[in-house]
Amino acid sequence: MARRKPAREQPRPGSPLRVLLRVPEGERVSLSSYDTGGTPGFPAGPPPLKAAGLAATAQLGERLAGLQERLYAASTAGDRRRLLLVLQGMDTSGKGGTVKHVIGHFNPSGCRVKAFKAPTAEERSHPFLWRITKELPRPGEIGIFDRSHYEDVLIARVRELAPREEIGRRYGQINRFEQNLADEGVTVVKVFLHIGYEEQRRRLLKRLDDPDKHWKFSPDDIEERALWPAYQEAYELTLERCSTGAAPWFVVPADRKWYRNWAVSRLLLDHLEALDPRYPRGDFDVEECRRRLLGDP
Amino acid sequence: MARRKPAREQPRPGSPLRVLLRVPEGERVSLSSYDTGGTPGFPAGPPPLKAAGLAATAQLGERLAGLQERLYAASTAGDRRRLLLVLQGMDTSGKGGTVKHVIGHFNPSGCRVKAFKAPTAEERSHPFLWRITKELPRPGEIGIFDRSHYEDVLIARVRELAPREEIGRRYGQINRFEQNLADEGVTVVKVFLHIGYEEQRRRLLKRLDDPDKHWKFSPDDIEERALWPAYQEAYELTLERCSTGAAPWFVVPADRKWYRNWAVSRLLLDHLEALDPRYPRGDFDVEECRRRLLGDP
Repeated sequence: MARRKPAREQPRPGSPLRVLLRVPEGERVSLSSYDTGGTPGFPAGPPPLKAAGLAATAQLGERLAGLQERLYAASTAGDRRRLLLVLQGMDTSGKGGTVKHVIGHFNPSGCRVKAFKAPTAEERSHPFLWRITKELPRPGEIGIFDRSHYEDVLIARVRELAPREEIGRRYGQINRFEQNLADEGVTVVKVFLHIGYEEQRRRLLKRLDDPDKHWKFSPDDIEERALWPAYQEAYELTLERCSTGAAPWFVVPADRKWYRNWAVSRLLLDHLEALDPRYPRGDFDVEECRRRLLGDP
Repeated sequence: MARRKPAREQPRPGSPLRVLLRVPEGERVSLSSYDTGGTPGFPAGPPPLKAAGLAATAQLGERLAGLQERLYAASTAGDRRRLLLVLQGMDTSGKGGTVKHVIGHFNPSGCRVKAFKAPTAEERSHPFLWRITKELPRPGEIGIFDRSHYEDVLIARVRELAPREEIGRRYGQINRFEQNLADEGVTVVKVFLHIGYEEQRRRLLKRLDDPDKHWKFSPDDIEERALWPAYQEAYELTLERCSTGAAPWFVVPADRKWYRNWAVSRLLLDHLEALDPRYPRGDFDVEECRRRLLGDP
């Protein structure tokens, strides 16, 4: 279970995952009070939990694919709803792994995956939400952001890439932007993959041990790691200020990859089930079409 | 085996699939001489072939995912190569199913899938390759076109959407465009999913039988079907004029879905193996990085 400081609304252990992992609106967040190796909400059972977790995630995958098809089908009849998954987290927290293992369950033709890198000169010449807007999912799609506009209040704050006042304004801009998305039928699911400092060390060392993983490593990663406390603080501020009713943040303990994949799958499932997309009915005469098909040469 | 009229270079049964299914450059094509229910190149074995086909495709999936990761990794070190799969075929030929079942094996973050619909007013105001260019894969990516610039010599020809002379010029424009892509490191794999007239009837009727599939059906599909001979002729012309050394066409018999998925997987594997992408070596001091990581607080 995630340990969290006493809060106004404390979720009970039996709550749905999206209640359990959600950052309550307007509440102080202390990331160090979370157990990054925890498995909150995962059903208790005999060890090893991992095998049960992998099996559960595989099962969720089929249900996710089914709901995605219905969401897409509904869009062909004018339903404008869609889902946007925003993944944030420290280096090695598993953003890429989540895309591979969770989003891999979906039909690729209905997904729009975008990994945001350092902005280009053109992107920097526009307001920070400009490049984000271009990559939003279309109706019926599932969009996935590996990093996002939140970089503009995270690395931007830690590395002082913009004046402090400007960064201060961005939280409000983000909240208004996301409120607009919600109004337009975009379900925004924001996930902070929360790994521990020691787990990051292990993962970086593992990359160094395998020459085929060196392409994922850069000495800059060590520089970034040295700023760990500043990043944690920037994340806490972000979670506090931008977990809104329209677009809440979820904190997913991410030291265990199987749990991370299960939890993100489960969160997506909860949200897609709440949307309850339906296959549209055809507006044509089925019998006549059948006759024509059977009657052609 | 695909039955094909005597040709200048007749592939032998043991040839690799990409030789067997390739449309030889400059050769006449007669689509009616193909067996759309055939399984050319699939290893003989005891029936049912389908089970063996599904197992073989699943195995190919793992190898495809591994090669894709290497292609992507190589791009992070400056390798500009990439692959573009172009899928064409009549309604119900399985373009969408191929994306779901074959491309579903890849990591979604390295795929760029684009389904081209009827062009918008803005797209029509530009040369026909404009909208295509915008959707090309970036280095290290695998691009998938569900329909493509070939619509501009297929439906455009059959439905007379442009003057005949203009369509006549497009074959050459396409060949030059694809030669440019090849020069820039894009491996273009063009697949015509060849289904039979009767198989299309079966598939359309099946859609009518299931209300949850009605969103995939439109009475327009019956209108299009009535133009079958004109479409086959347009495809024949296209395959003859645009199967080039830089970007050959492959004809995949597509009445059997398991074979279609296996053949497209195998074609992709052949091309990715020929690219032989390598994980780049790191240009940093591994030992020093390890010391720094182990030494931090």
